[in-house]
Formats: sequence, structure tokens, C-alpha cells
Amino acid sequence: MTAPTGEHVKIREVGPRDGFQNEPEVIATDDKVRLVEMLARTGLRRLEVTSFVRPDVIPQLADAAEVLRRARIPEEVAVTVPIPNERGLDNALALRDRFQEVNLFLSASETHNRKNVNRSIEESLNGLERVIGRALAEGLRAEGVISVSFGCPYEGHVPAERVFAIAERLAAAGCEEVAFGDTTGMANPAQVRAFFDAARERLPGVELTAHFHNTRGQGLANVLAALESGVRSFESSFGELGGCPVPRGATGNIASEDLVSMLHEMGYSSGIDLEALVECAREVQRVLGRALSGHVVVAGPVDWHEGG
Amino acid sequence: MTAPTGEHVKIREVGPRDGFQNEPEVIATDDKVRLVEMLARTGLRRLEVTSFVRPDVIPQLADAAEVLRRARIPEEVAVTVPIPNERGLDNALALRDRFQEVNLFLSASETHNRKNVNRSIEESLNGLERVIGRALAEGLRAEGVISVSFGCPYEGHVPAERVFAIAERLAAAGCEEVAFGDTTGMANPAQVRAFFDAARERLPGVELTAHFHNTRGQGLANVLAALESGVRSFESSFGELGGCPVPRGATGNIASEDLVSMLHEMGYSSGIDLEALVECAREVQRVLGRALSGHVVVAGPVDWHEGG
Repeated sequence: MTAPTGEHVKIREVGPRDGFQNEPEVIATDDKVRLVEMLARTGLRRLEVTSFVRPDVIPQLADAAEVLRRARIPEEVAVTVPIPNERGLDNALALRDRFQEVNLFLSASETHNRKNVNRSIEESLNGLERVIGRALAEGLRAEGVISVSFGCPYEGHVPAERVFAIAERLAAAGCEEVAFGDTTGMANPAQVRAFFDAARERLPGVELTAHFHNTRGQGLANVLAALESGVRSFESSFGELGGCPVPRGATGNIASEDLVSMLHEMGYSSGIDLEALVECAREVQRVLGRALSGHVVVAGPVDWHEGG
Repeated sequence: MTAPTGEHVKIREVGPRDGFQNEPEVIATDDKVRLVEMLARTGLRRLEVTSFVRPDVIPQLADAAEVLRRARIPEEVAVTVPIPNERGLDNALALRDRFQEVNLFLSASETHNRKNVNRSIEESLNGLERVIGRALAEGLRAEGVISVSFGCPYEGHVPAERVFAIAERLAAAGCEEVAFGDTTGMANPAQVRAFFDAARERLPGVELTAHFHNTRGQGLANVLAALESGVRSFESSFGELGGCPVPRGATGNIASEDLVSMLHEMGYSSGIDLEALVECAREVQRVLGRALSGHVVVAGPVDWHEGG
């Protein structure tokens, strides 16, 4: 590993969607808007703001349209909205000028996909191909997201070949970027390294994004393995918010502030003001009324001052 | 990174010393003995059981002799006892048949060493050289431990050359093994990789051990970097116990069960029964009456079962 000198790494903050979605108590829309605006001013360039899912299934995101309409986000920040299906796209398109990217998600295992969206993988792909076509026609950028890419809590091992085949379909339909999710934190660094080495060969021209969870404490080790394999795009959640509610009490996505701290210490650049990001994590702890499991929010960034 | 096929990694469990020492409430000797005996039956081969420090300075370890005398530890487990000075060695030698290794510690920065043991580094080295000589004469194995090897909370940057010079002195005095401590979690993977690449050249024939803290969430990422540099010996603490009390609320050593989980998933062997180790972490949570910050103790080991 040669120390990088300022090489840029892209980070998509997914806390306002992936994180909030897993909170049992509905967060006030005002708080969401304020947190989204704070995040949008940290220097990050990709921000998942909300999702147009069914409000009866996920009441936490019932205010999707209001959050998207109200939040003042600098022009240089690409706003991403996950879209589950064509109805979701219709709802989002009513606010077409408020976002630049859609992400389209499905699972790499039949069982997980069935439990999540009540469809087979093939049914999901057919539906998403139509959504991608319409999104591109609207001038939107499309990102595919494949859950349980590194292992499924229901099926166990997930063959990388199956994941790549799904990614190829998404890319062929027009996704410039595909994110691979370790949804319940089953990945290990040896697997991650082999996975992305193979993915780069199988998916030339596609931006490969890694989405890790810290369920078993290996989140940043998996980031390191992905970096070593050439991955330069990650998704993370401020405050280590989010993650699967199973197993109970398990930690969530990797914390954005812990990720940025590691990247900057290693010599990568992210464009993000770490202190401002830590302040966002502190603020979401205040809003939720509890301490989250991120590390840098407690310990603070490394202080390399000289002298006693 | 080539996936290792069962390559062995050594782990020294330091929770009963490094972990307990940082607990504000004194733990009952019976509980300590029971936990040490549980750990000793997990398959681990190196166990730091207690330390002969001044009881007025660290009341938590005032029962060092009793714990060492009472705990029934299988013959194949090497018991390590940290020794601060000659008086500590005298006290430990009264129970000479109960341990096989001593570890001798000092800091890589003058300020940290002064605050920790009220001596200059040179004074510490002179004293430890005498202790090492006497320990070797008693047939004990000697391990040196250098705190703040990757950065000091008081002095900031610590030049690797200074750390290596201290390690050379310890090795010349008879230490077969030197552990490098990231005492307040300031290390990052790029630094760790460069450090151990250089250390292997500078310290031929010395077993190099990495001792990381998870203060900023990078503990296992640093382990990965050390593994990639050829390090095959680590120190960790069950339940993620321990660590510096500064900053307040910061997490401690890397959790032994999280480390073992990652190593096994990557294809390394440790000889340790992960489920038994997780049970130790659960038990220490019960004894302390609070949840600790380890991950696998909550999420459980990865379950690679097949089928829904």
C-alpha cells in the first residue's frame, strides 16, 4: 500500500434515508430538514435525502416530498433519491428539480428480495429496467444498489457471480454506478478484496461503490480492503445510524465521520470538513436523545499537535 | 492479498490486566478468577492475567498475587505478567511457578512515560534492562511493550525511528517479542503498514506484536494493515474492555471476539473457540453490569448456513 497523496474518494451520505428509516420514533420534519441542510454544508457532494416508499410501510419517510421540497441544498451537492418502483418515480418526479440521481435497489438473494419487496429478483429487475429508462429520459443519473451482496442472513453464502449478473443487468439498463451492500455486516476483508478485484473485470466502465455495515466491527477494515482493490466510492451514515433491525441492538452503517477520519489520516481527500460532519453526528444524537455507536463523535478527530 | 488457508495468528488476551485496570469499580477477586479461567479454556495460548503494580496507585490490581495463585490455567496457556520494575518482579517471583512470561513496558514519548511511570525513557530502559536480565535468569520469556508507538496524546507525532531505537534496546537486553501499542487509537492503516514494513527490517528475529485500540473505530482496519505487513501476533481485550480513560467515553482495546471473528472469516486460524470467547464477553458484561462496545457479542458470529 503506497500512501496516497490527496487522492479523492467519493462519499455518499445515506443517513437521512437509510439511517432515519430504521429509527422507531418518527423524527419531526423540521429536524430532518435541519439535519439535511447541515450535512449539505459539510463539503460532501452526494447526499441521499429521503425515499419515496409507501408511507403505510415506512411511516418515518411519509414526509419525503416535504423534506425534499424544503431542504436548501447547495448546487454542487448531488441529491439522491431511492426509488422502489414506478409509482415511487411518479411521486418523486413531481419534484423533479430537487434531485439529480435516483437509486434503484434490489437484493442479491431471492429470500431477502421477497421479504423486502415481495418480488422475485427477475420481477424486480424487469420493473427497475423500466424505471431506469424513464429516469434517464428525465435527465436523471441512475445508480443501482444490490443488497446482501456479501452474504444473506436467510440464505447464507451469496455467489459473487450472481451479484455480478444482477449488476450487469442494471448497468445495461443505464446505471452509471452500482453499489454493493453488506446489509447485515457479513463481509470480511479477504472476501471484499476478491469481490472487487473480480467486479472491476466484470463491470468495466461502471462506477463501483461499496456500502458496508459495522455489524461485526469490520466496517472500516472492509473499506481498507476495497480501497486496496481500487474502489474510490463509498456510502456511509453519519452517527453510524441505520442498518438492519436484525440482530437487535446491532450497530448500523459505517459512520461517515469515522470513515472520513480514516481516509484523511491515510492521506486521501474527501472534500468534507470533518469537524462539521462530527457536529452533524452530535446534532442527530441530540435529536434522537441517545448516544449512537460512532467513535470519532466521542473521541474527536486525531490531534497531531506538536509539543506538550 | 491472497486468502490464507488456515495460517496461524497468535493472540494475547490482555483483558484481565489492561481491561480490568481501567474499570472504576473494583471487581471481586472471585469474579476475576472465574473470568480468567473461562478465558484460559477458550483455546487461546497467551493470557495476561494481572500485573504487579503498586496497589495504592492501581487498587483494582491489589489482588494480583491471589488471582495468579488461585486461577487454574491449562498448561498449554502461557501466562504473561506485566512487570513495572524490580520490586514488581520480586513480588511476582514469589509465585514463579504460576507464569511463563513477563512483559516490560514503557512509552515512546518522554511526556507519556513521565506521566505514566515518572521517569525518563532512558531511566526506564536502564531499569527494565536489569529486570529483563533477572527474568531471563529465572527462565522466563520476556516481551517488551512500547506505548504510544503510533502517536502520543501529549506530543502528537512520534517518529518511528525513536520507537525502533527503544525496541532495539529491549531486544538487545533479551526480549524475544516487542509489542507496539496504539494506546489512544491514533494509528491509521497507511501508517501501520509503513511502520511494520520498516520494523521487520530494523528488528530481524524479534517477534513483532501489534496492540491496537478502537478509539476511532479503525482498530480492525489497523489489524488488516498489520496482517498485510506480515504481523502474525496481536494483543486484544475481550468485550473491548480497557483503553485509556482519556478521552472520556472512548472505547478501549480492540475486542478479542471481533478480532477472532475477522481472522476466522478471512481464513486464518487462531486456535480459539469463538463461541466460548463470546460467552466470556457476555459474562464480563454481567459482572460489570453494563453493555460494552464490542460488536460480535451483540450480533453473534457470522452464520454461513445455507437454505432459507
